[in-house]
Amino acid sequence: MSEQTMSTGMGLNQRTAGLVDALERDAAALRLECHRLDNQVRIIDAGIHAAGGLEAGRRIAEVCLAGLGTVSLSGAGPVAGWPLAIHVHTENPVLACLGSQYAGWSLAHGEGKGAFHALGSGPGRVLAQKEPLLKEMGLADRAERTCLVLEVDGEPPVELTAKIAADCGVEPAALTLILTPTRSLAGTVQIVARVLEVAMHKAHELGFPLAHLMDGLGSAPLPPPAPDFLTAMGRTNDAILFAGQVHLFVKGSDADAEDLCRRLPSSASGDYGRPFAEVFKASGYDFFKIDPMLFSPARVVVSCLDSGATFTAGAVDLGPLADSFGTPMT
Amino acid sequence: MSEQTMSTGMGLNQRTAGLVDALERDAAALRLECHRLDNQVRIIDAGIHAAGGLEAGRRIAEVCLAGLGTVSLSGAGPVAGWPLAIHVHTENPVLACLGSQYAGWSLAHGEGKGAFHALGSGPGRVLAQKEPLLKEMGLADRAERTCLVLEVDGEPPVELTAKIAADCGVEPAALTLILTPTRSLAGTVQIVARVLEVAMHKAHELGFPLAHLMDGLGSAPLPPPAPDFLTAMGRTNDAILFAGQVHLFVKGSDADAEDLCRRLPSSASGDYGRPFAEVFKASGYDFFKIDPMLFSPARVVVSCLDSGATFTAGAVDLGPLADSFGTPMT
Amino acid sequence: MSEQTMSTGMGLNQRTAGLVDALERDAAALRLECHRLDNQVRIIDAGIHAAGGLEAGRRIAEVCLAGLGTVSLSGAGPVAGWPLAIHVHTENPVLACLGSQYAGWSLAHGEGKGAFHALGSGPGRVLAQKEPLLKEMGLADRAERTCLVLEVDGEPPVELTAKIAADCGVEPAALTLILTPTRSLAGTVQIVARVLEVAMHKAHELGFPLAHLMDGLGSAPLPPPAPDFLTAMGRTNDAILFAGQVHLFVKGSDADAEDLCRRLPSSASGDYGRPFAEVFKASGYDFFKIDPMLFSPARVVVSCLDSGATFTAGAVDLGPLADSFGTPMT
Repeated sequence: MSEQTMSTGMGLNQRTAGLVDALERDAAALRLECHRLDNQVRIIDAGIHAAGGLEAGRRIAEVCLAGLGTVSLSGAGPVAGWPLAIHVHTENPVLACLGSQYAGWSLAHGEGKGAFHALGSGPGRVLAQKEPLLKEMGLADRAERTCLVLEVDGEPPVELTAKIAADCGVEPAALTLILTPTRSLAGTVQIVARVLEVAMHKAHELGFPLAHLMDGLGSAPLPPPAPDFLTAMGRTNDAILFAGQVHLFVKGSDADAEDLCRRLPSSASGDYGRPFAEVFKASGYDFFKIDPMLFSPARVVVSCLDSGATFTAGAVDLGPLADSFGTPMT
Repeated sequence: MSEQTMSTGMGLNQRTAGLVDALERDAAALRLECHRLDNQVRIIDAGIHAAGGLEAGRRIAEVCLAGLGTVSLSGAGPVAGWPLAIHVHTENPVLACLGSQYAGWSLAHGEGKGAFHALGSGPGRVLAQKEPLLKEMGLADRAERTCLVLEVDGEPPVELTAKIAADCGVEPAALTLILTPTRSLAGTVQIVARVLEVAMHKAHELGFPLAHLMDGLGSAPLPPPAPDFLTAMGRTNDAILFAGQVHLFVKGSDADAEDLCRRLPSSASGDYGRPFAEVFKASGYDFFKIDPMLFSPARVVVSCLDSGATFTAGAVDLGPLADSFGTPMT
Repeated sequence: MSEQTMSTGMGLNQRTAGLVDALERDAAALRLECHRLDNQVRIIDAGIHAAGGLEAGRRIAEVCLAGLGTVSLSGAGPVAGWPLAIHVHTENPVLACLGSQYAGWSLAHGEGKGAFHALGSGPGRVLAQKEPLLKEMGLADRAERTCLVLEVDGEPPVELTAKIAADCGVEPAALTLILTPTRSLAGTVQIVARVLEVAMHKAHELGFPLAHLMDGLGSAPLPPPAPDFLTAMGRTNDAILFAGQVHLFVKGSDADAEDLCRRLPSSASGDYGRPFAEVFKASGYDFFKIDPMLFSPARVVVSCLDSGATFTAGAVDLGPLADSFGTPMT
């Protein structure tokens, strides 16, 4: 994909608007709660006061992908003893996963104990242009309406929501914020639906050219949510690190494809092996002390379009997955 | 889910109307036969005079779920030797499965040999309010059009159809009855698509609070239809009893979740073990002599949202499944 | 299915028009290139100058099925070591697979080295009525717009496109040609999506009555594309021959169903055993020297609706599949 193609304006926000309105329309059945803040920003609560659910999470994950992909749940996945699985398939993984789904916009308000921190995911990112990644991709969009998905336990301060709208260049009434706590069913789905995105992002971090990442699919078992944030966060990561699978199709040389494949699985990281909650605890609860190369799927297949060769690396690892999910996998 | 949420009127009938009209629009390709009775009740025949098919059954199963869920067929399921499988996923299992899909409305006309008996499934049930279950759920709906799905071998008497319309509070011309014989392809799909519903219903029978049943998915192998009613009924039940799988997400205590999980699988019933047609025969063809606890999936996973704990019970049992389907499973 | 049913005009072309327009609408994200020839025939390039992708191929495969079926990709299929798989499910396999998807219209222009040869697939075939198969099916359609899918490496000569339009009885501006090279991601998907079609076609070649082929599903692993035509063609065939699975539902006698099942798998052919590229090479690159009975899925399940009996034959064979895909399958 050339930068020129990317910058032609895919209408990421326009594509997403209908999906977001459908969440509000179906709010009762999806057990979402929708309301407007004083400044008219629309809040869609998928797990704070609202119960939410798996299907709500699935649809929110498709919002994260800017309507460019399909997220599906099935009762028969790669782990025989844990049938519940998620599959992610997008018509354009670089655009959908990195241009929209990646939680790359760092949002903060206030200081000290009452401070609010969140990472914004979704097509609003491309309007705000706060991230070098988006500039590197040459990605731009124009829209009168936009949305972000935030993995948070509480509502953002109204001042912050006004700033987000301003940064996106839209009226506050034209901004929707979808809130999915890590501990919720919807949150669990929308996080594990990142199984392909973490592979795309790590490929980029490893220096693999984005324009050579042509296509891909991902799948992972869906963990049980946990009321405790640390456990919940651990499980959603472990689902990907120990049992996520991706198949990528790339351009370029066999040597580059093989090198990407070898370095891409989570097991290529020195921090691999223990459930993620333990790794996080051992780091003193400091994400920046964890090897960023840990965040990737367990098993990777890379097919090189220029040669037709296929490389595989990593493996599904049921032992630590069972420890993390708190149940035997057989 | 609070009763208040349930009683706000989800528009179960309104959601379904478009799906029913689509069946008539696509009748030629789906091999359905549509006509009006003398009183203008619309009949959609999916297997009596019409050939019907798997996709017709899949779409009728989504009608049963009142448009609140997805039923999919795949050629790769949990039973390696029998790839054809069905997956059921709904945004709101209590509402979709118990509020609409459960065949809970007992319909009868005439007496003796010419009597007509059927169990009504679908969103018309919530208009008619004939069942204590619906009152307990506090579920209500208003609609000018409605439909029911009947698992029958012949057309219902016109007098009965008029009574159904009156009970639903709609004009006869606003009632659609979809007919799916047990022995048909469409009937097979719409019955086995009840794999999640039977789990929800048995949970309720076991006294588990409906408001604690938050989410769930189900899957099962799809059996071959049989021209003989007893064999066909046996197989559709056996697909669920010996190889159905569900994953439920519940609120409440670990003790209650574990107890539910332990009691939920079909193998917890004393009648478990033989193909269902044999059990039915041994009961003297009297459903009421069969343990109602038999009607549930083979394997159950229950995750407790309040604790994050997961329990599993039961197992897929290929021996009796092969006996029932009439073919080896390996 | 009676001939009468078939000839009532299913509107195959009308059904497909919206899907084709959606390809142009989503061309940027799907990485398709759309343009008009001098005579106004619309070309949708899915892999010649355009990059295309898996999702583009999936949607083109649904165009081939005339909008009568669903093609899905998943990251967990029947081959554990090769998770990427394709599933095909249609509401009417005879109509969708043989009436539209089968690449049965032989198109040619020019002679010698510069000659253009292609096989046309899609609903345009039923307008042109060039094939005995369509006459045998009694299938007809009327439409003001149409499309064909061509598995080619280059654009067809403009003279040929004008002739196609004339044969279909539409204006050139009302004809769309979708081009999917064998070596492309989109081409790979649309070819392997023929796993069910090859079974239907071989059943017909074996003399099984079309009116007795009531329903069916198919699945196969999706191979890596290869830049070399021979390798690419080999892999797409091998995915079906060594690992494709179908389940057919038929009318008629048990003897006929069992005979069909026994003869249907690829392994029933004397040419079975080696990767297809080798077979093709050994034939002197002459398709007509290869046993036509080779073109069928690896494993076949046939259920007889008149008796309820099920027959199985063939098996997935990972050895030659691994040789063909160029990677171990474990």
